[in-house]
Amino acid sequence: MVVDDLVRSPGSWLSMRRDTGIVISSRIRLARNLKDEPFPGWAGDSDRIRICSSLLDLFRRIPDFEDALFFDMSTIAAVDREVLQERHLISHDLAARPAGSALVLSRSEQMAIMINEEDHLRMQAFSPGMGLMTLLKRLDQVDTRLESHVEFAFDVRLGYLTSCPSNLGTGLRASVMMHLSGLRLMDEIEPVIKGLDKLGIAVRGLLGEGTDAYGNLFQISNQTTLGDSEAGIVQRLTRVVEEIAVHEENARARLWESRRNRLEDHVARSLGLMLHARLMPSREAVDLLSGLRIGVDFGLVSNLTVAQINEIMILIQPGHLQKMTGRVIDSDERDALRADVLQKKLKHVTMAA
Amino acid sequence: MVVDDLVRSPGSWLSMRRDTGIVISSRIRLARNLKDEPFPGWAGDSDRIRICSSLLDLFRRIPDFEDALFFDMSTIAAVDREVLQERHLISHDLAARPAGSALVLSRSEQMAIMINEEDHLRMQAFSPGMGLMTLLKRLDQVDTRLESHVEFAFDVRLGYLTSCPSNLGTGLRASVMMHLSGLRLMDEIEPVIKGLDKLGIAVRGLLGEGTDAYGNLFQISNQTTLGDSEAGIVQRLTRVVEEIAVHEENARARLWESRRNRLEDHVARSLGLMLHARLMPSREAVDLLSGLRIGVDFGLVSNLTVAQINEIMILIQPGHLQKMTGRVIDSDERDALRADVLQKKLKHVTMAA
Repeated sequence: MVVDDLVRSPGSWLSMRRDTGIVISSRIRLARNLKDEPFPGWAGDSDRIRICSSLLDLFRRIPDFEDALFFDMSTIAAVDREVLQERHLISHDLAARPAGSALVLSRSEQMAIMINEEDHLRMQAFSPGMGLMTLLKRLDQVDTRLESHVEFAFDVRLGYLTSCPSNLGTGLRASVMMHLSGLRLMDEIEPVIKGLDKLGIAVRGLLGEGTDAYGNLFQISNQTTLGDSEAGIVQRLTRVVEEIAVHEENARARLWESRRNRLEDHVARSLGLMLHARLMPSREAVDLLSGLRIGVDFGLVSNLTVAQINEIMILIQPGHLQKMTGRVIDSDERDALRADVLQKKLKHVTMAA
Repeated sequence: MVVDDLVRSPGSWLSMRRDTGIVISSRIRLARNLKDEPFPGWAGDSDRIRICSSLLDLFRRIPDFEDALFFDMSTIAAVDREVLQERHLISHDLAARPAGSALVLSRSEQMAIMINEEDHLRMQAFSPGMGLMTLLKRLDQVDTRLESHVEFAFDVRLGYLTSCPSNLGTGLRASVMMHLSGLRLMDEIEPVIKGLDKLGIAVRGLLGEGTDAYGNLFQISNQTTLGDSEAGIVQRLTRVVEEIAVHEENARARLWESRRNRLEDHVARSLGLMLHARLMPSREAVDLLSGLRIGVDFGLVSNLTVAQINEIMILIQPGHLQKMTGRVIDSDERDALRADVLQKKLKHVTMAA
């Protein structure tokens, strides 16, 4: 079964580029709806199933997707939906309403199209590091290709129509995952977040809307989709991300200058706990991996790359652990297994001499 | 200089008996004052110096003390007073008013007599594990010997007179240091402490009066010194300590039974942090050593004894670290040095297979 194969490794795109340090990954999604069809939230199951299967047929006919994987949410196990969710390929909402929902996934996991989530189509593209403009071009091609086959709900004044008004217009959400340990360790993250809010930029935690930022990972995205072009939105967000990265680099430089022993202590403790703990809750693991991440960036850690950290981040999530054991395990067992996986993955890692 | 020799090892008595587990050490002190002499708090420096030197002369003439070490507080360095305090041989008050104060210390550090602390004589005896009755006999001998040379302030109705009314009567304070990790980890320590308070038993933290209990170390002592014989006080406290030890053993049994994985995690994390941290504050070190202590008691840890833990506890204190470097070091340097000492002392320690 295909989800089983996924579990063994992270999306290959996560290790495609050299270590990216501060900007971990980029993501763009476009929301589109078919003209004259009920939106997924209002559609009954039979309509959803009909729409879903016609969209799947459409993708199967498009050359770009001849290699793609097709997941019918209603026929795959709950744990498999969990795995897809942990890989950020599908949303919680898609997993929660499997009837008439599907995922079209490119082999490299760089493109993931949700069918009948909040909108008929949620087309997502991912890249390591900063890659928003490339992603936009890639999605634009798919969008254009689709529009030669189907007509999308569109209003001359409002643009693309979406279930939620916050997506009206371009239907585009661009987001970048940033690792802002320097600002966090220097206690300077709050003003940065407040400043972004004033600019109409949303800052969220690792797991998206409504979640705390942990592991010092922040998702930076546009809040408005209306009143600007796709390229305009992406250019604006890119500039903001570059500016945040400069702040982060400055914070790191000062951290190195003035608190190097605290930084080393932070990294060494993170490693020590992961090498020794017997029970490792998910949230703590992400926090400790953040400690290793900045350690790698500063060259304080040997035998570890950022790509390996990204891989570990994905593998230690509950659904992935569950798939690994092949049976249902409770939270204590999961914490024990997570501790075990971390010890194995990190056993050759040391502090740099 | 003699204090320098002390720094290199703990009091030899701490490793005299096999590992004691729950009851770490016992201590008795007798408070005595010379008749017709002003109490130390009221005496001027010249009186204090005169009384101190006559008492030192007296001890030098008693055969039991021919081997003893004599420390004149006014001639030793502040850091040496700190070292003596960290070994629980002198009090903060004695260190704070060095003029006319002294310490008479047996070579094994099992007897430490403070001169001109709150009372003219504060005679203390120490033993590993539970040893109150033996200590009482030992101090009684010294007391009797002294009374053949000098007359103590004594009232037929009140007993021995002391500076503070709380010591009137026997002038005896018996205390036992207990490691109550089981009760703490099972969240059952609070009712035990409340019960002891009702029995007129004082519970204090590691560093005596007014300090928090940390490292799960609790000092259990009698609150009243009046209205009972020396032996009566000691017997009563011994019974109480035995009862607490039973509670602690029960808690440990249930911990092993029902939360073994949490216990192992607790021990392994304590070890991991001490092996890796680059900065180790004093308080955290004591807490982590408590984790190792219960690990040793349960056989979860290899290549470590309780006696070694007791030794480490003493060596990593600020004054001891300062003596080790031979120069004044700030708190960050101390934390770095403490981390270093812990890594060296524990480098062969592992979790038992």
